[in-house]
Amino acid sequence: MNKNLSKLFSPNSVAIVGASNTPGKVGYSILKNLIEAEFVGEIYPININDKVVQGIKAHHNLGDVKKNIDLVIICVPAPVVIKVMQDCVKANIKNAIIISAGFAETGSEGKKLQEELEKIVSENKINVVGPNTLGIINTENGLNASFASTFPRQGNIAIVSQSGALCTAILDWARQEKVGFSRFISTGNKAFLSESDYFDYLQHDPKTKAVFVYMESMKNTKKFLKEASELAKRKPVIVLKSGRSAQGQKAASSHTGALSVDDEIFSIACQKTNMIRVNSIEGFFDLAKTLSKIKKIKKFNLAVVTNAGGPGVIVADSASVHNFPLPEFSSKTINAVKEINPHASNPLDLIGDAKPIDYRTALRVLQDDSGIDLVYCLLTPQSMTNPERVADIIISLNKRKPIICSFIGGTSVSHPKRFLKENGVLEFETPERGIKALSRIKGYYERKNLKKIFDQKITPNKEIKKTLKSKPKLNLKESFELLNKHNIKTTPTIFVTSIKEIEQKINLIKFPVALKTGSGLAHKTDFGLVKANIKNKEELIKEAEKMFLISKEKKLEEILAIQEMIQGQEILVSSITNEFGKIITYGLGGIFVEIMKDVSQKIAPINESDLEEMFSEVKGTKVLLGARTKKKYNIDSLKKLIKSISDLALTYPEIKEIEFNPVIVTENDSFVVDCVINTNN
Amino acid sequence: MNKNLSKLFSPNSVAIVGASNTPGKVGYSILKNLIEAEFVGEIYPININDKVVQGIKAHHNLGDVKKNIDLVIICVPAPVVIKVMQDCVKANIKNAIIISAGFAETGSEGKKLQEELEKIVSENKINVVGPNTLGIINTENGLNASFASTFPRQGNIAIVSQSGALCTAILDWARQEKVGFSRFISTGNKAFLSESDYFDYLQHDPKTKAVFVYMESMKNTKKFLKEASELAKRKPVIVLKSGRSAQGQKAASSHTGALSVDDEIFSIACQKTNMIRVNSIEGFFDLAKTLSKIKKIKKFNLAVVTNAGGPGVIVADSASVHNFPLPEFSSKTINAVKEINPHASNPLDLIGDAKPIDYRTALRVLQDDSGIDLVYCLLTPQSMTNPERVADIIISLNKRKPIICSFIGGTSVSHPKRFLKENGVLEFETPERGIKALSRIKGYYERKNLKKIFDQKITPNKEIKKTLKSKPKLNLKESFELLNKHNIKTTPTIFVTSIKEIEQKINLIKFPVALKTGSGLAHKTDFGLVKANIKNKEELIKEAEKMFLISKEKKLEEILAIQEMIQGQEILVSSITNEFGKIITYGLGGIFVEIMKDVSQKIAPINESDLEEMFSEVKGTKVLLGARTKKKYNIDSLKKLIKSISDLALTYPEIKEIEFNPVIVTENDSFVVDCVINTNN
Repeated sequence: MNKNLSKLFSPNSVAIVGASNTPGKVGYSILKNLIEAEFVGEIYPININDKVVQGIKAHHNLGDVKKNIDLVIICVPAPVVIKVMQDCVKANIKNAIIISAGFAETGSEGKKLQEELEKIVSENKINVVGPNTLGIINTENGLNASFASTFPRQGNIAIVSQSGALCTAILDWARQEKVGFSRFISTGNKAFLSESDYFDYLQHDPKTKAVFVYMESMKNTKKFLKEASELAKRKPVIVLKSGRSAQGQKAASSHTGALSVDDEIFSIACQKTNMIRVNSIEGFFDLAKTLSKIKKIKKFNLAVVTNAGGPGVIVADSASVHNFPLPEFSSKTINAVKEINPHASNPLDLIGDAKPIDYRTALRVLQDDSGIDLVYCLLTPQSMTNPERVADIIISLNKRKPIICSFIGGTSVSHPKRFLKENGVLEFETPERGIKALSRIKGYYERKNLKKIFDQKITPNKEIKKTLKSKPKLNLKESFELLNKHNIKTTPTIFVTSIKEIEQKINLIKFPVALKTGSGLAHKTDFGLVKANIKNKEELIKEAEKMFLISKEKKLEEILAIQEMIQGQEILVSSITNEFGKIITYGLGGIFVEIMKDVSQKIAPINESDLEEMFSEVKGTKVLLGARTKKKYNIDSLKKLIKSISDLALTYPEIKEIEFNPVIVTENDSFVVDCVINTNN
Repeated sequence: MNKNLSKLFSPNSVAIVGASNTPGKVGYSILKNLIEAEFVGEIYPININDKVVQGIKAHHNLGDVKKNIDLVIICVPAPVVIKVMQDCVKANIKNAIIISAGFAETGSEGKKLQEELEKIVSENKINVVGPNTLGIINTENGLNASFASTFPRQGNIAIVSQSGALCTAILDWARQEKVGFSRFISTGNKAFLSESDYFDYLQHDPKTKAVFVYMESMKNTKKFLKEASELAKRKPVIVLKSGRSAQGQKAASSHTGALSVDDEIFSIACQKTNMIRVNSIEGFFDLAKTLSKIKKIKKFNLAVVTNAGGPGVIVADSASVHNFPLPEFSSKTINAVKEINPHASNPLDLIGDAKPIDYRTALRVLQDDSGIDLVYCLLTPQSMTNPERVADIIISLNKRKPIICSFIGGTSVSHPKRFLKENGVLEFETPERGIKALSRIKGYYERKNLKKIFDQKITPNKEIKKTLKSKPKLNLKESFELLNKHNIKTTPTIFVTSIKEIEQKINLIKFPVALKTGSGLAHKTDFGLVKANIKNKEELIKEAEKMFLISKEKKLEEILAIQEMIQGQEILVSSITNEFGKIITYGLGGIFVEIMKDVSQKIAPINESDLEEMFSEVKGTKVLLGARTKKKYNIDSLKKLIKSISDLALTYPEIKEIEFNPVIVTENDSFVVDCVINTNN
């Protein structure tokens, strides 16, 4: 069941345990922040010594308050926190922020304290932020429940950050950039509430239009995935996850003590959930600025205006790199600007002697073009182009249709840039950054409409479940039976356990055949347990005798598989288990996977758009489309097979790994030739 | 012969044709700029009406001056420029800057004018900048021969830019960033002098320590390559070339009328010459800032100091992405900072309550560590960390060993950031940008020591030259003869022109063999003119009869090649001709090239480090190293072959294309199996 965090963010009353009259103390800052932010509810300072704290009547402890307390902020030393939490239980308080540090992040002593806390909290179902947090902020009701020295302006962006230091940097940056926030959450150690809880809350928060997340480690990945996906269906989610490299993970673990998640898989998870992943603070800031200032845009036909050809070319390049085609202007538009530039095209060059009035004309005309959703306005310092005047014009026109600006230069554009910023115009130091930020948001909306989760479910077979629970891996016969029961085609195969059996079944065999061990061994070739292209009975029996002998020697199950040789393209399809669930891999077999690493991975369940992405991400797919042999392989059967492996992996959680290697895809169908299934046993 | 540009940049006397008393006119701005920059030589304004211009005695025309004029700046309307150039010839003036626009950039009329100009200039060997230029600047002698409104401070950076607008933006930016310049060149239309001439001059200019280039089109690519390479041997060259995409090229051609070069090949050229290519204005600015402020650094062992764990992790990630390992601290260093952080490692976390004195201690200790060349200092706004004080400390320590800074935030760090900047400290908005800029410079110095051009030369064979000049392509026999004469091994091959000849030579043939047309046809398979694995004489004759028939029908030369079948890995090696010269390609054959585009290209001559790069850039090289078959193929023989194709292509300029496809590399050697040679005829 999801937690109800509404009183955490919108309490009617707040108690501060450790509220202080001494400047410099955290308990001083927090109370001061609440008062200064004009929190709309009751405030109850708790202080064992002072009767009045910062002008407000104080209580000795929580029990003395005798009023309903919705939220308690705790900023006493770590060892005292346990006692305070017990008081919370007695007073039936359901929401707490533990500012205090000194828990899991400090080592084994702190870890023990944190475990004690966890016990109390989970038994009593208390929503706890932290410990070791900067606190939370709700700009709507003046709840500055943090010791951050800045209270942000109201806005539409929520921040969820694992780094308190980054929080203060963001607040400081936002003040300068005039970016406002709805909610601000420093997650701290995430001992209780973590991203997924906040995501659940923010989904339904009407003030929040976009969510920005900084994280280093992850709790409960599957829930994270689910809530992130739900949240991203409603609003853009931007995530900066550090610990991307071994070097970064080392730094992160010495910093938080938490373990990092596999970074590549995290990227796959972002793609699956449609979160926008950024890899730099700059990208984080640029997107925050964009989503804060351009609120409603969902279409991205971009016109560029410039007084400088060179930067115009650079923007066109940059747009192209970020998959941002610049549309042609309508003939009406071309006509309307022909006095400024007789050969108008997009980017529209106003030529170096552009006057402010030319900017005005061009901007208005482009805004009136129904084929244009956004205008990017470039300016370089030129003698005829008064940047202050152009800034005025942009500010006056910005409400008609969004204008994004880059005034490239330094001294002579710094004032106009500040003026633009102060008046709510989106402005970037260089146009490449602006284009990049816009392209990420464009990508979000494109993918938002794509996602379709399959409802397709398959019924687990009881017998199979029993088998899977009884052994660490299946042999090939068992694997094939499992596949066949779920309508997955396997190459025609006869299993035999003796030479005698071969002789009995010889009439069923269509030569040429391949012979191999059916024991479920992974690297058969290395043991001489595969032989292709066997042409007749004599050869078959000779090879079978050899393989039975090797099987005996190696203490393998003495079972061989005789398979028809099917001509086609080899494919690898597999499922492995990790913290995100089941990861499905597709690639062409052999060298393509091993040397070229030409594979695509997605998190199960695999949906139609995942399949499209898998096929387009793998370069070798071109072979299946006929690039090499001019044959067109049956891709639909392969898609069905990839969906099936995803279904199997989800239906039977007992399965740890399944690998179809190879699948042979022909012009008509796809067949599993070999299969390894390992269970959790 | 290279041009001598010393008087262009360091004239003793300058005449301005079109010098004016009317503010707003270009001729006014230029004279004013020269005067204000306190140009150290004589100034001769030329004006047909006024006797005195801006307080200086003016002359009616150049001939009236009667003194030696080293440089003339021309800012009269385009049609008058021809006349002025004729005056220059009469007055024996050897250097001119044509500011005037209205030439090739405007269309066919202007093109004609420019051609007239070219004739005069080339006949009289005049060094001409432009036309259609902002002008040039030399900060050393106060030569502001431009109409830019800003005269930059002196510094160690030269700018060569094809965009005048970008020039003004850079000047404006530099004033704010306190970046100084040695020379500043707006190339204009590059009708006469182009980048290669300026590169030649800047190589020997002691004031210039780094060269920044913006370009959209290229003149005389081979000379460009040569001069860029010479220049980059001496100092870092940073190049921003736009028109990277089709969209950008379209914008560029409508802007300059010039044709763009193939962008991928341009990147290969940058790698070859060791120019640093950047793809954004931001990258350009960041490198300019870095090279202007950190002058002597050639080693890049980087220590990171931070008061925030999160950003520390981000920096570690970023360093890793840019191939920037963070070295371990010495035990002495760890000891010296253990009071600040008992678990010190790189990045060094001073913890959120870091005081300025902690920064001071840490910075000094890290600077004293002989294993550290640079310190990156991060700061986020925290209550205990006074950013102004930390900035003071950094400024005072910066001279001991370079400190690079990122103060992450907005309002509360903007003053300290400005203070750092004003005091010459290198400062970046975010650490990722700083790390990226440093990594590019690090890469430059690493590659600088690598480059070794082969001296290896081969002597052209007269007979071969004759053959190459006589036909559009060679047949396989001729190709093989050419290769064998230059010690390139081909697979054992017997050429026959009739069935009778096969029968005569049957004893020389070792079956199995491959049979194919020897006519030099490119797509043999499509015509049924290749057959592998022929096992005996009968089969051979049957196939040969078929092929002779097809050859006759298709009007191909009736010659067949009978080749021994060699087992090994197929490789493609080729040389094509383009504006940069000979481009050599290496990749594994077939699917690797066609589908995976897994190839590496370099510009001939191929040297040892090119070969290393080629082999490491191609993923499939792992196959040759034994990744798949456990065989180790003879890579040395393949390297020799790649060098050989480069030599052949350079030795015989008559050859337009050579393709070895396939080469078979075995465990012992490499053999050309098929070869196509097309000539320029």
